[in-house]
Amino acid sequence: MREENGMELLKERIRKDGKVKEGNVLKVDSFLNHQMDIGLFREIGKEFKRRFAGEEITKILTIEASGIGIACIAGEEFGVPVVFAKKTQTKNIAGEVYTARVESYTHGRVYDIIVSKEFIRKEDKVLLIDDFLANGKALEGLIQIVEEAGAHLAGAGIVIEKGFQPGGEKIRTRGIHLESLAIIESMDESTGEIRFRESAC
Amino acid sequence: MREENGMELLKERIRKDGKVKEGNVLKVDSFLNHQMDIGLFREIGKEFKRRFAGEEITKILTIEASGIGIACIAGEEFGVPVVFAKKTQTKNIAGEVYTARVESYTHGRVYDIIVSKEFIRKEDKVLLIDDFLANGKALEGLIQIVEEAGAHLAGAGIVIEKGFQPGGEKIRTRGIHLESLAIIESMDESTGEIRFRESAC
Repeated sequence: MREENGMELLKERIRKDGKVKEGNVLKVDSFLNHQMDIGLFREIGKEFKRRFAGEEITKILTIEASGIGIACIAGEEFGVPVVFAKKTQTKNIAGEVYTARVESYTHGRVYDIIVSKEFIRKEDKVLLIDDFLANGKALEGLIQIVEEAGAHLAGAGIVIEKGFQPGGEKIRTRGIHLESLAIIESMDESTGEIRFRESAC
Repeated sequence: MREENGMELLKERIRKDGKVKEGNVLKVDSFLNHQMDIGLFREIGKEFKRRFAGEEITKILTIEASGIGIACIAGEEFGVPVVFAKKTQTKNIAGEVYTARVESYTHGRVYDIIVSKEFIRKEDKVLLIDDFLANGKALEGLIQIVEEAGAHLAGAGIVIEKGFQPGGEKIRTRGIHLESLAIIESMDESTGEIRFRESAC
């Protein structure tokens, strides 16, 4: 059923329940980021474990809100604690937190993400987890925090990458071990058709 | 190790790693709501399953961000999907979402929570899950959404209830099956002492 390098279950679900909307929006809120199918999350967590089997990982870092559920299930697979970066538009107490500025294209706003310095140490080997990768701004913010902490960045695991947007390319070019379980090559809002990068699926 | 009606592991952890701060604030961000101990979440999920063993449950409803991780692990124990209510300060599309207004004492602001109507149906038997119960405003917002959907409210599972604030009393008075795994009777910011409702622990 499942391919060596893919995750057929996830792709089938995206095809079945994902809705292509105006402006390159893929709505997957019936199973991924509003209502959450935890059985699917378990399969996603196991797949991340397989793909990062060669990496030593001591902590998972994600970002609120929609990364949290996936990161928690993955955290159990890896047997490590999970930290989520908080989004804030208020001024932060300098010194106690790492911060990064993130520009959101989807929501047309800029926000800061913060992580308490207590929870990412320089000894940590950090795996980043998030639900979506499009322009890569949120992921770049998380990477900046890991770098600021002086921790080792083990890699980044993404559920759905929009392959036609520049985030994935930017991250891979930096030599970061990025694993996206489903990479969308193109999608058509008039027909609802979704094409994935691996031609076999 | 574990009491019949309590959860000694959780209480020990609160005593060990919880920090009592000015203004009746209990900081548990090293294991519950910023960094998350998924092993502990698994025990919490199992305990909710035991306490609501008599209830038929088809869906778990929580609120972003800190309820999501606990709700996902509990969702796996119950074998049901998890929905999280989103916090928003923007105007919503009427008709497509259930909304409730929530007043936050902690953050001194008012926000709306929204849940897509697709994901809570009148056939659903909903268990509410959240990390904290203090004044009960967030929980009341979730209850309002379940009522608006015409769904059955099976109960509410809370990790930490501040027993000296009025939320728990208000919810119980309404006849709702509320289970709080740790009820704090009092806490002292000068000594850091935390007293739980059950005298045995």
